[in-house]
Amino acid sequence: MNEKNIPAIVISRLPKYLITLEKLHNQEIEKTSSNELGALLDITPAQIRKDLSFFGGFGKKGSGYSIPNLIHVIRDILNLDIVWDVAIVGAGKIGQGLALYEGFLNRGFSIKVLFDNDPNKIGQRVGVHQIYDIRNLQVIIQDLNIKVALVAVPQAHAQKVADQLVQAGIKAILNYTPVYLTSPNSDVVILQIDPILQLQNMTYYLK
Amino acid sequence: MNEKNIPAIVISRLPKYLITLEKLHNQEIEKTSSNELGALLDITPAQIRKDLSFFGGFGKKGSGYSIPNLIHVIRDILNLDIVWDVAIVGAGKIGQGLALYEGFLNRGFSIKVLFDNDPNKIGQRVGVHQIYDIRNLQVIIQDLNIKVALVAVPQAHAQKVADQLVQAGIKAILNYTPVYLTSPNSDVVILQIDPILQLQNMTYYLK
Repeated sequence: MNEKNIPAIVISRLPKYLITLEKLHNQEIEKTSSNELGALLDITPAQIRKDLSFFGGFGKKGSGYSIPNLIHVIRDILNLDIVWDVAIVGAGKIGQGLALYEGFLNRGFSIKVLFDNDPNKIGQRVGVHQIYDIRNLQVIIQDLNIKVALVAVPQAHAQKVADQLVQAGIKAILNYTPVYLTSPNSDVVILQIDPILQLQNMTYYLK
Repeated sequence: MNEKNIPAIVISRLPKYLITLEKLHNQEIEKTSSNELGALLDITPAQIRKDLSFFGGFGKKGSGYSIPNLIHVIRDILNLDIVWDVAIVGAGKIGQGLALYEGFLNRGFSIKVLFDNDPNKIGQRVGVHQIYDIRNLQVIIQDLNIKVALVAVPQAHAQKVADQLVQAGIKAILNYTPVYLTSPNSDVVILQIDPILQLQNMTYYLK
């Protein structure tokens, strides 16, 4: 199998498969089927069989999928066999909310550091995390060898912060601002969490 | 054109087309091409031509797309010709951050009301929005005829809140909790904003 040949749209579905498989695994269920996964995920069983066929022949016809094996393979493909350290830039409400987000536990990511430019916030704590001066962003991110960052600054500062992160060696940026961010380096992945894009997608289904 | 035949994956790309087209339009650009849109959106021109072909023959070969026309058609398909009122449930950091989110302005959505169960928060203001008692959720949502809600409560309360929203007549839920929410009504659309799902998608590209 050449992992480079997996389409981005298939990759984007793997985390959803993973969360569902882990839920089944937590219920001590060992086997599943494309029908069961399809019903849980609202994806057609044919699509699921096609997606999983990219990762080799481990879903033998009629015998179902081994859940522990499938979890292992998907975590391996997504590089989740290690825990990724994460920096959050912007300690406003969204940034602090992310620092405290209950969903980070045991899912492959660990918030390491939080930055802000507000002297009243620098040095304060958000849960177990201390807020650092954004002027030390580059030094700290390089020292800690962090590759993943969440950006939750006011939109006017967003691109400048993204540029600083790329310069500091960040390779994946999750952008919580409404600004579309770009990187001069093509090896940096940027995704945007813009509620409007999701809401505009849902209103299609409302008549 | 039968809008029902448009695949969900195409619909999910339309808001991204829209944001890019509106950016061009703000720069007083009147025409674009699948090549230009493709470069701006990191989607192949062939995919863009195929997506837009679902909406009729308005991209004549060689003449490019009329940006105002394309904006009009996409907004019409996505039901964005009206402004949708939105309720936020949970006035913690994420909920308050969403209430103050700069990206909501002029994009088809208007935050109308914010709910919480904390007596210290009820009656307080977040920007121009007042926080209401969650016990009045059903009455207020029905009175205001709100169909769209954002859920940003602690995960232990998430499904219960979703059930209450569905009962109150909400038809689209954007879920900011790490819990996978379900609805007994198949006409309710639920999307989840889980940063981990996005981060797990990006780590595939990090070696």
